[in-house]
Amino acid sequence: MRPSPVPDAVSARLEEFLGRIRAEGDGYGTDAALFLDAAGAALSGGKRLRARFCHAGWLAASPASDDLSALWGLCAALEIFQSAALVHDDLIDNSDTRRGRPAAHRALESAHRTAGWHGDAESFGRSAAILLGDLLVAWSDDLLEESLRGHPHAAATRAEYARMRRDVTIGQLLDITEESAWSVNEPAVLLERALRVASLKSAGYSVIEPLLLGASLAGADAGLLSSLRAIGHPVGMAFQLRDDLLGVFGDPLVTGKPAGDDLREGKRTALIALARERLSSADRAGLDRALGDPDLSPSDVRALQTLIDGTGAVAQIEEMIAEYGARAEQALASAAVDAEAAATLRELAEAAIARSA
Amino acid sequence: MRPSPVPDAVSARLEEFLGRIRAEGDGYGTDAALFLDAAGAALSGGKRLRARFCHAGWLAASPASDDLSALWGLCAALEIFQSAALVHDDLIDNSDTRRGRPAAHRALESAHRTAGWHGDAESFGRSAAILLGDLLVAWSDDLLEESLRGHPHAAATRAEYARMRRDVTIGQLLDITEESAWSVNEPAVLLERALRVASLKSAGYSVIEPLLLGASLAGADAGLLSSLRAIGHPVGMAFQLRDDLLGVFGDPLVTGKPAGDDLREGKRTALIALARERLSSADRAGLDRALGDPDLSPSDVRALQTLIDGTGAVAQIEEMIAEYGARAEQALASAAVDAEAAATLRELAEAAIARSA
Repeated sequence: MRPSPVPDAVSARLEEFLGRIRAEGDGYGTDAALFLDAAGAALSGGKRLRARFCHAGWLAASPASDDLSALWGLCAALEIFQSAALVHDDLIDNSDTRRGRPAAHRALESAHRTAGWHGDAESFGRSAAILLGDLLVAWSDDLLEESLRGHPHAAATRAEYARMRRDVTIGQLLDITEESAWSVNEPAVLLERALRVASLKSAGYSVIEPLLLGASLAGADAGLLSSLRAIGHPVGMAFQLRDDLLGVFGDPLVTGKPAGDDLREGKRTALIALARERLSSADRAGLDRALGDPDLSPSDVRALQTLIDGTGAVAQIEEMIAEYGARAEQALASAAVDAEAAATLRELAEAAIARSA
Repeated sequence: MRPSPVPDAVSARLEEFLGRIRAEGDGYGTDAALFLDAAGAALSGGKRLRARFCHAGWLAASPASDDLSALWGLCAALEIFQSAALVHDDLIDNSDTRRGRPAAHRALESAHRTAGWHGDAESFGRSAAILLGDLLVAWSDDLLEESLRGHPHAAATRAEYARMRRDVTIGQLLDITEESAWSVNEPAVLLERALRVASLKSAGYSVIEPLLLGASLAGADAGLLSSLRAIGHPVGMAFQLRDDLLGVFGDPLVTGKPAGDDLREGKRTALIALARERLSSADRAGLDRALGDPDLSPSDVRALQTLIDGTGAVAQIEEMIAEYGARAEQALASAAVDAEAAATLRELAEAAIARSA
């Protein structure tokens, strides 16, 4: 894969933004430093996937101007928003780690202990992480607005950003609902429901909306936006199905998350829906009892992996991924974008679908 | 007090907005209805205080146009944002009730139980409330942008809205930090720190920023914005000090919150800081042990009320309230606003300072 200019440009823009916030933060007293440190940690690392799709969408629209400043601002805003979503996500999923480091609520809990403060450190960590996520959302909007100031395509870009925010939050709500509500639904509808969540959270939020954001900033017309949607949807769906497989079978050294994390969290993915349909009712009941148990041992996880793989669900998910990949390739081939944009989109699509972390 | 047009206008705008969201929400399936209901409950009731200050700021700027549509949209956006803050706040404070009804996380917990879903209802309620708050913030932005579309003062209003969001979130972070960090600080600095939080959360968020938002929308110049800040700061500080008193001594039938709620939550208010300074070290240690204990009985609460009142701290807070009130009156008298705006501001200031709920 060719080196992408995106990660460095986005990191530089994030550094510059955080630097200004740190300077202003002095007015809020020394305690504010605690949260600025936690925000800095939440913003570091990551694959900058959304920023890269945003850049690809911008390239696809063959922007008239080669002024990249607004684009990098938009990309950095997206990454700040994503870090906010992860801070709340880790809290909701009770995840202790993120990108191989303590999750924000755990880091804030440790800070409470280190400072020797009064009261329950864990509860402080959780409360502070709710607010840290809120603050990161506010900052992402601030950076977005700063980047759009006086920009000819500000209104279209802002509207797309708003759609992205709604979709991911509703997707998240439906996702956690499914972790509870599956028990009152027929096995046959669970796959459909898992795919609906994937469509909102992964296809919409992680791929389509970043693509459309970049394209909107570059003044794309309706035809191009529609082509990018047609490319982004299968890429995002394949991305999520790959994620489902990694959440159960991924290598902790590569993913930065404990093995079988999705099993402990009780995620009701397409993979799980397919496996359940194919299990005997006794095995299905066993799977249902195990899913969402935070205390699953490594050998419990291995047994569940064997059970799920034995149904053929993994092979079926791989087939679905391949099919979505082919559909993305088809959409890409028929899109009216220049060679550089097409190559960037293709590379990104392949990386999203074939990744191991 | 003269009847204000604000509550009805804001409620009508909120209804209309929620109605449109409900119509769109059908696309997200039946589970989404659960969250729309919770959102509707979070948005109902309340004193519409911020909307009223926003309206007063708008009046003060003698707007050239009498088109109220953007103003009511802005006021309704403020109320949606406030309901988001309360949803997260109640989660952080572990408050079971809000405005005499179950807090959002408790309502969502009950919905989980009623539906007979799988897993831990309490944990579902907490997770869903984090996301509900996020969704309400997104909606508040959506309504703001819809209201500002094509508006001549959109940029100034948007910038003020962003400042409001940052200030309240940082104020909240410092507030919860103070509930933990007080134990490593000298008693003498606790009052200063409590007043700093009051300045961000109450003076800034609840009064000054709503005033400036309304005024910015009406195209106010720098001189008027500065006058409104001078009026709003003492009103907001007095409002918070009154809140501190109500949080310890308020009548549950009037406040809609259990008696002594701030004591159980361990809030480190100016009232508590003053009382602590005046207590013997034995009594101070007793107060510190009791504060933040969720299981305080009604008689524990009465004993703490007597202890705090006995220090003279209540009388001193009342004096501070009276002083802030006088400062607000002075600022109001010297502001260049017309008689109607001055009367509205005065009424609101008095209501905020003298309230019993």
